[in-house]
Amino acid sequence: MNNFNWKIKKKSLNNRARIGKISTPHGEILTPAFIFCATKAALKSYTPSEAKKNGTQIILSNTFHLMLQPGSKLIAKNGGLHKFMSWDGPMLTDSGGFQIFSLGHGSVADEIKGRKFSNKRKKTLLNITEEGAIFKSYINGNNVLLTPEKSIQVQRDIGADLILVFDECTPFNVDKNYTYKSMLRSHRWAIRSINIFKSNLNYSSKMGSAGPQEIYGIVQGGIYEDLRDESIDFNLNKINTFGIAIGGSLGSTKNEMKHIVNYTASKLTDKHPIHLLGIGDPRDIWTFVKQGIDTFDCVSPTRLARHGSALMKTFDGKINLKNSEYRNSLKPIDENCKCYTCKNFTVSYLHHLIISGELIALQLLTTHNIYFMNELMSYIRKAILNDNLEEAELNWYK
Amino acid sequence: MNNFNWKIKKKSLNNRARIGKISTPHGEILTPAFIFCATKAALKSYTPSEAKKNGTQIILSNTFHLMLQPGSKLIAKNGGLHKFMSWDGPMLTDSGGFQIFSLGHGSVADEIKGRKFSNKRKKTLLNITEEGAIFKSYINGNNVLLTPEKSIQVQRDIGADLILVFDECTPFNVDKNYTYKSMLRSHRWAIRSINIFKSNLNYSSKMGSAGPQEIYGIVQGGIYEDLRDESIDFNLNKINTFGIAIGGSLGSTKNEMKHIVNYTASKLTDKHPIHLLGIGDPRDIWTFVKQGIDTFDCVSPTRLARHGSALMKTFDGKINLKNSEYRNSLKPIDENCKCYTCKNFTVSYLHHLIISGELIALQLLTTHNIYFMNELMSYIRKAILNDNLEEAELNWYK
Repeated sequence: MNNFNWKIKKKSLNNRARIGKISTPHGEILTPAFIFCATKAALKSYTPSEAKKNGTQIILSNTFHLMLQPGSKLIAKNGGLHKFMSWDGPMLTDSGGFQIFSLGHGSVADEIKGRKFSNKRKKTLLNITEEGAIFKSYINGNNVLLTPEKSIQVQRDIGADLILVFDECTPFNVDKNYTYKSMLRSHRWAIRSINIFKSNLNYSSKMGSAGPQEIYGIVQGGIYEDLRDESIDFNLNKINTFGIAIGGSLGSTKNEMKHIVNYTASKLTDKHPIHLLGIGDPRDIWTFVKQGIDTFDCVSPTRLARHGSALMKTFDGKINLKNSEYRNSLKPIDENCKCYTCKNFTVSYLHHLIISGELIALQLLTTHNIYFMNELMSYIRKAILNDNLEEAELNWYK
Repeated sequence: MNNFNWKIKKKSLNNRARIGKISTPHGEILTPAFIFCATKAALKSYTPSEAKKNGTQIILSNTFHLMLQPGSKLIAKNGGLHKFMSWDGPMLTDSGGFQIFSLGHGSVADEIKGRKFSNKRKKTLLNITEEGAIFKSYINGNNVLLTPEKSIQVQRDIGADLILVFDECTPFNVDKNYTYKSMLRSHRWAIRSINIFKSNLNYSSKMGSAGPQEIYGIVQGGIYEDLRDESIDFNLNKINTFGIAIGGSLGSTKNEMKHIVNYTASKLTDKHPIHLLGIGDPRDIWTFVKQGIDTFDCVSPTRLARHGSALMKTFDGKINLKNSEYRNSLKPIDENCKCYTCKNFTVSYLHHLIISGELIALQLLTTHNIYFMNELMSYIRKAILNDNLEEAELNWYK
C-alpha cells in the first residue's frame, strides 16, 4: 500500500489526448502537466513559494548534478530534497543517465533534438560497460562510476516522489546496430534498477527520511520503429513500473520527432502516465498532448527568461525584451496575462532592467514564463474536458 | 497644503535618540528607519512586493544613474518611478551630485568613509563650475552638464516623495580651503535647487504625474567643526527645507566619523528629520541613532547578500556562506529569525546554492538581510520607546 495512483479522467474523442491525475504523497498532479527543472535543487532565480503561487504542480531535479554537488548524503541529512529546497509538492528526479551521456556525447538538447554534434563542451564520459558508466566529475575531476544500483540509491537519498530507471541516452549520430545494443543494455539496467528499487521499498536513509517513491521505465529505440516496438513490449510486459517515459534520440528533425513520439505513444496504454523527456516548446506541447503525452519537462521556460525572452501566445512563441524596439513600450508583456510581472510592470521597465544588468529582470521574466506554461497546461486540460482541443489550439494563438 | 509631515513621538532620556514619523503621500515612515537602495529603479535581485512583505518602509533611487538610463522622461511617461518600478510606498532620490563626484573622484564609499583614494575606477568628472558639473556618461560617453536646476527637474520627473538639493560631495583628500569653497558653492547650489523646486511646486510632467514632493538640504563642511557650524547655520536659518541630510566627507577613520556626525547632529534641532547619507553597518546605526539620526541609507545589506554574506546579530556582524565551514550545517542562518530564508532553508542549502552559482542564493540572502535591517530598526524604535536603548544594544548581540 502506498500513496501513489494514476487515473485517467477523460479521453479526447478526436485524438489520444487525455486528462488524468497522478497522486503522490506530496500532492496531486493534474495532467497534461509541465514539470519545471530545478536542476541543482533550485529553480533558476526563483523561490519554490513563488513557483507554487504561479500554479506549478511538480518540479524535477537532476541526479547527476546533485550526486556531485552537494552529494546525496547531505541532502538525506537535510531530510531529503523536499526539505532541502523547501518544495513540499510532487517532485521527480531523472536517473543521471541523461546528463552523463549527453554531457559525454555533446549536449542534452543536441541529443534528443538531433542537433548537429557540438564539440564545444568537454566530453566527460570515459567508458560504458555492462556494469555502468564511468565519467569525470566536473566538480573535482575524479572518475565516477554510476551504475543502476548507485543511481537508485542516490535517488532514494534525494527522495523525489517519482524516479527513473538508469539508462543510456543513446546519441542520434550512431547507427541502428549501436542503438539496438544500447537499448538492450538499458533494458538490463532497467531490470537492475527495478530490482534494487523493489528490494528496499521500505528504505529510509539512516540520516534522512525519504518517503515512498514510484519508478518510471524508459522506452528506448531511437528513430527505429521495430526497436521502439521491442522496447515498448519490454516496458509493458517484462517490467512493471508506475509510469513510462519516452527517451532516447527522437531524430534530427521536428518531423522525425513528431513521427517517432506518435508511433511510440500510440502503442502505450492507459495503464501508465506517459512522460516525454526534454520537450518544452508550447507549439510542440500542443502536438504531443494530442498524441497522448501526459507530462513534459524542459529547461526552456526558465532558460528563456535568463536570456531576456518572454513567452507569448503567438506563432513566434516569444519576444526578446533586450531588443531596442521595447525601450519605450508602456504596455505589459501581455495585457491579458494575470502574472505579477504583467500586472505590475511595463515592457519599457523590463527592458531597462535587462539593459542595466539588474538581476531582478530574470526573476520577473521567470515569473511570466512559469505562469505562462502553467496557464497553457490548464487551458489544455479544460479543452480536453470540453472536447474542443483543436479549436482551443487555434484560439490560443493571437 | 501638502501631505507631508514630520513629528517626533518620543525623545530618549539618556541620549539624543528619538522616535518619529515622516508622513508622505505614499505612506508613513516610522523612524529611526533604514532606506534600502534601489539604485537603478530596482532593489538588487529583489521584487518590491517582497521588500514590503519584509517590513521595508522606504527605498531610495539614484538620480545620476536614472537620468542616464532609462532617462527621466521615460520614467515620467510611465507615470513616475513609483509606477515604473511598482513600489507604492515612500521613496527618496538623491540629487545626482553624490555619484558624479564620487565616481569622479574615486568611489562613493571611499569618499564618505575616507578610504584611500582608489584609481581603479575611470574618473568621469570633467569639470566643476559655478553653473554645475560636467561629467562623461558611462552609458554613451557623451558629456553631460548637471546643474541644480537640471537635478531638480529630473527629480521632478522621477517623482520620489523626498528629494535632495544638488551638492558637491567634497572628497576627503582635499584641504580645508577647498572644502570651504566647495561648501559655499554647494550652499549657492542649494539655494538654486530650492528656488527651482518652489517655483514649480505644482509641477506635473506633461507626460507623467509626479505628485507633491518635499526637499532635503545637506550639511557640508567635511571634518571641520567651524565649517560644519557655518553649514548648519545655513541649513537652519538661510533656507527652509523639510529635512536635513548630513553629507560631505566624514573623515578617514570611524572615530572621526563618529565625532563629526555627533558634532553636527548635536547642533540640529527637532524641526527636521535628519538623514545620514551612506551608512548601513548595524554597529554604526546603534551609535548614530543615539546621536539623533532618524534615517540611514546604504547599499550594504543587498550588496553583502550578492557577495554571499548574511547579516548576523554578532559583533562580527556577518558570516560568508561561501566558506566551506558551512557546507554541512543543518541549521538556518539564525534559528530565531522569522524571515522566509531562515524559516525554510539550512545553511548547507544556501552554501550549496552559492557554490553551484544558483542566482536564487542572492534573493534568499537579500531576504534575510532586508528582514534583518528592518527588524533592527523596529527593535531600536521599541527600545527608545521603552527608554532602554543601551540595554537593548547589549541584548541585540549574541
